[in-house]
Amino acid sequence: MCAAINNDALADPVSLGRLLTRLEDDPGAAREILAQLPAPPPGTHRIGITGSPGVGKSTLMGRLIQRYRRNDFPVGVVAVDPTSPLTGGAILGDRIRLGDVQADPGVFIRSLGSRGSLGGVTPGASAVAGTLEAAGYRRILIETVGVGQTGYDVICLADTVIALFSPEAGDGVQLLKAGILEIGDIFVVNKSDRPGAELMFKEISQSLEISQLTAADRLHHGPAASEEQVPDAPVDCWHPPVLAVSARDDEGVAEVLAAAESHRDWLAGLPADHPRRRRRIARELGFVLRSRVSRALELELAGRVEQLAARVYQEELALWEAVDELRRDLRELL
Amino acid sequence: MCAAINNDALADPVSLGRLLTRLEDDPGAAREILAQLPAPPPGTHRIGITGSPGVGKSTLMGRLIQRYRRNDFPVGVVAVDPTSPLTGGAILGDRIRLGDVQADPGVFIRSLGSRGSLGGVTPGASAVAGTLEAAGYRRILIETVGVGQTGYDVICLADTVIALFSPEAGDGVQLLKAGILEIGDIFVVNKSDRPGAELMFKEISQSLEISQLTAADRLHHGPAASEEQVPDAPVDCWHPPVLAVSARDDEGVAEVLAAAESHRDWLAGLPADHPRRRRRIARELGFVLRSRVSRALELELAGRVEQLAARVYQEELALWEAVDELRRDLRELL
Repeated sequence: MCAAINNDALADPVSLGRLLTRLEDDPGAAREILAQLPAPPPGTHRIGITGSPGVGKSTLMGRLIQRYRRNDFPVGVVAVDPTSPLTGGAILGDRIRLGDVQADPGVFIRSLGSRGSLGGVTPGASAVAGTLEAAGYRRILIETVGVGQTGYDVICLADTVIALFSPEAGDGVQLLKAGILEIGDIFVVNKSDRPGAELMFKEISQSLEISQLTAADRLHHGPAASEEQVPDAPVDCWHPPVLAVSARDDEGVAEVLAAAESHRDWLAGLPADHPRRRRRIARELGFVLRSRVSRALELELAGRVEQLAARVYQEELALWEAVDELRRDLRELL
Repeated sequence: MCAAINNDALADPVSLGRLLTRLEDDPGAAREILAQLPAPPPGTHRIGITGSPGVGKSTLMGRLIQRYRRNDFPVGVVAVDPTSPLTGGAILGDRIRLGDVQADPGVFIRSLGSRGSLGGVTPGASAVAGTLEAAGYRRILIETVGVGQTGYDVICLADTVIALFSPEAGDGVQLLKAGILEIGDIFVVNKSDRPGAELMFKEISQSLEISQLTAADRLHHGPAASEEQVPDAPVDCWHPPVLAVSARDDEGVAEVLAAAESHRDWLAGLPADHPRRRRRIARELGFVLRSRVSRALELELAGRVEQLAARVYQEELALWEAVDELRRDLRELL
């Protein structure tokens, strides 16, 4: 059923687009398609940009694309942000037209629907990113809202995570508490000319310092660490930089790109058996499985869920008994 | 292994706390515990409060608890918000001490760890809510950040969802676009004395109107609707109210409570076979299954994920092949 993939199908944007649509629409075909893809060329890298709605992810992404293109890097974009203006075409907001980026054959933008819902699932995201790599795009930018199930999950597909903040969003410290510190490799405060930007910059820097001290403390004095286990150098010595940018005015963007490339080099320089090198793959495996389960529950098993819910509602079944039944059905589908 | 549950284990807060800990820690025992619980008394209701970090969820919740207690309603609280001050004791912020609520034997507060991460899973949340109901708590308040995988998922456990905004969070319109309109049954703007509150109130009201018009339009003119299928009245005629409050000053809170009770009455008045009546149960079934899968990936299968990731990293396996292997393992565990 599935035509063999040749390089033409990847090289031509229209065929590539069709291939991605098949990947997304038909999970059965996806496996066959993926099995036929060439291995991605070495040295590709995935950069995720996450942040609350309105912090300027698309604008920063547009600026990064422009810079990568100046270096002749083909750039693939996977956008999984229901609030993203990417699909609308006004990627850099009102001020800057992105015609040059969107008309550029070295840029391939794919917007993945999350069905307009905070809890939408995007099981195709992993396959899309992998296919873009196989097609020769050397940098894959992944845009996700840092909020919502989808947003968090999709960031699992990135090697380097840029956590973007803006003083106007006002959720900086709260997000830091909520665990964004553990997710980000690079922290960026956008709209650095606005009031509150400096304070936000300081707060992020301080939170990072504290979390690193705590981590070092755990490493050296933690109950699990015996004398022999204490290494000479910290196991993970990437210190996430905190940068200030004005993406709209293209200020500070070069530093963000440099930090992303540094992080890539740092990863590549780790010992081959270092778990951090394969963290993205480990997370991606989890992402694919979780997405499949969500998809099964929302599509194939939707009727069954309704039927069981009705029986629980009528007190014919306890909730845990319905869970048992559903578990059996899900097992068949996995 | 599991001692029979008698009513004492539910009536006494200390025993109840221990029971909940066992539910959370040992999913194997949970099934046995749940099977022994008495059916919850009729008329219980679950109210979820969701919103970005810092909008004032805990403060509003504290105010709602106070009011329910004046009506002598025992209130159970399930808090799944890593940024919540609930666990810290300062539930109403700096100004108001919540000593009276926390010392009240008619209030049981359970804070569920989400492991301090945006993507933490809380497989026990459903069992905890069900057990609190069985223990006789007539209103269950569920607090979640509207952001992060956990936040979205846990709101599936509520019958009535209050979506809370504050002009300072600045993400109102963006969140509306991101699908919060579909989740909320009651919309509340907190900190209504602050600048921007009125504008936010208007924006939410307008967005709701538009989404209702669109829904009505789909209903009456949608391609799927034949003449015969058009019902006399809209299928779902709950019009989510938009309310302004100042939770800190206890202003407008009575109206929020009244709206929650109205929504409960509206649900109870729907025809017995109306899908909306069992929506919470259907969502809860999905929540429990998804949580189990996440837990299996993070605990039981963690070593296996690492091992497969290493093989993908060393190019011994393609990612989709590793997914296939992991799928088989997961099937065994479900």
